[in-house]
Amino acid sequence: MRDLSRAAAFRLITGGISPRPVALVTTRNLDGSCNAAPFSAFNYVSDDPPILAIGFDTHGDEGHRPGERKDTLVNIERTGEFVVNMVDETLLDAAVACASDYPAGISEIQVLGLTLAPSADVDCPRLMNTQIAWECVRHSTIPLSATRTLLLGQIISASLREDLLLPDETRIDPDKWFPIGRLGGPRYTRTTNRLTRPIAPYKPAEK
Amino acid sequence: MRDLSRAAAFRLITGGISPRPVALVTTRNLDGSCNAAPFSAFNYVSDDPPILAIGFDTHGDEGHRPGERKDTLVNIERTGEFVVNMVDETLLDAAVACASDYPAGISEIQVLGLTLAPSADVDCPRLMNTQIAWECVRHSTIPLSATRTLLLGQIISASLREDLLLPDETRIDPDKWFPIGRLGGPRYTRTTNRLTRPIAPYKPAEK
Repeated sequence: MRDLSRAAAFRLITGGISPRPVALVTTRNLDGSCNAAPFSAFNYVSDDPPILAIGFDTHGDEGHRPGERKDTLVNIERTGEFVVNMVDETLLDAAVACASDYPAGISEIQVLGLTLAPSADVDCPRLMNTQIAWECVRHSTIPLSATRTLLLGQIISASLREDLLLPDETRIDPDKWFPIGRLGGPRYTRTTNRLTRPIAPYKPAEK
Repeated sequence: MRDLSRAAAFRLITGGISPRPVALVTTRNLDGSCNAAPFSAFNYVSDDPPILAIGFDTHGDEGHRPGERKDTLVNIERTGEFVVNMVDETLLDAAVACASDYPAGISEIQVLGLTLAPSADVDCPRLMNTQIAWECVRHSTIPLSATRTLLLGQIISASLREDLLLPDETRIDPDKWFPIGRLGGPRYTRTTNRLTRPIAPYKPAEK
């Protein structure tokens, strides 16, 4: 890996470590407006307490506001809050549109005509049409290098579309939830081609 | 989230934050044999340097060797090394079988008849039939709670099946790479139902 350029390492890693869940993260800007940006260096890392991790480019790259600290990271550091809107089939186009190189001060949400809804336990709003939103407070920020930062967030509240849950109210109905996975390059995958593989208990071999 | 039991929080989070990439992690046991266990609280978090994150249950649960520190974590802490064998369609059944509750001292690899291959830059072997293996050294261990630990590993070498790469040698051929995603419960998804969504550059609206 040491012999690869950063761009080559990025292509190899994002092609190989897949499919990745996609977080469309909403944060509150300094002027009170709302920012939305998609991230796929993202997953849960703990259920006890519930903690998720997001890897960030700390600054914009050559093509997009070089040297400026990323809006989402700045906003989370200032407010201590963010919302992860899970990207499913209905939210994919909005997530991709939010990844465009908007200048600071231009709200993707306004340009794209997305509607916000209040969160239950954080000031930062979620997207109205999100089926699953995780309301988070910043747990910790871990600098990894000059260019990358790992942010851990604790989920304090979950907002789900009501009919998404099975009657026991803690399991998501798999027949109603079609999240999108991020692959390499401009590719994504639907989650419609499924398999079921229960874990069999260990049985010692007969002697 | 505070009002949910741990089991309920687990079901909600693992159902909602999906599809997750699956790491079949091989480590070297104290006796020199090899351990293999699957993890889906897993993703890359940085490409510069290349770092991946794995969330662990620190100990076995009620059903499986309660109180014992998990083999994979113990081995990584002792040796400082591990290999992530990426789970694709060809490796899924082995990964699920490795998740069974083997007693300490029983090698999943031996029981399942899996074949090992030497790694290039770490002592710990990879699985022979893995299409993509990331050879890693421990970057840091971050305790999250009494029950959960976050491990960061730096990828120092990548081992790929040769014909998996496109001619430029840094991009994985999407037509040859079919990773599996973890959904909630016993469900997984293939990555065959794909979409392409390039990011359009920002264009200011005409006034």
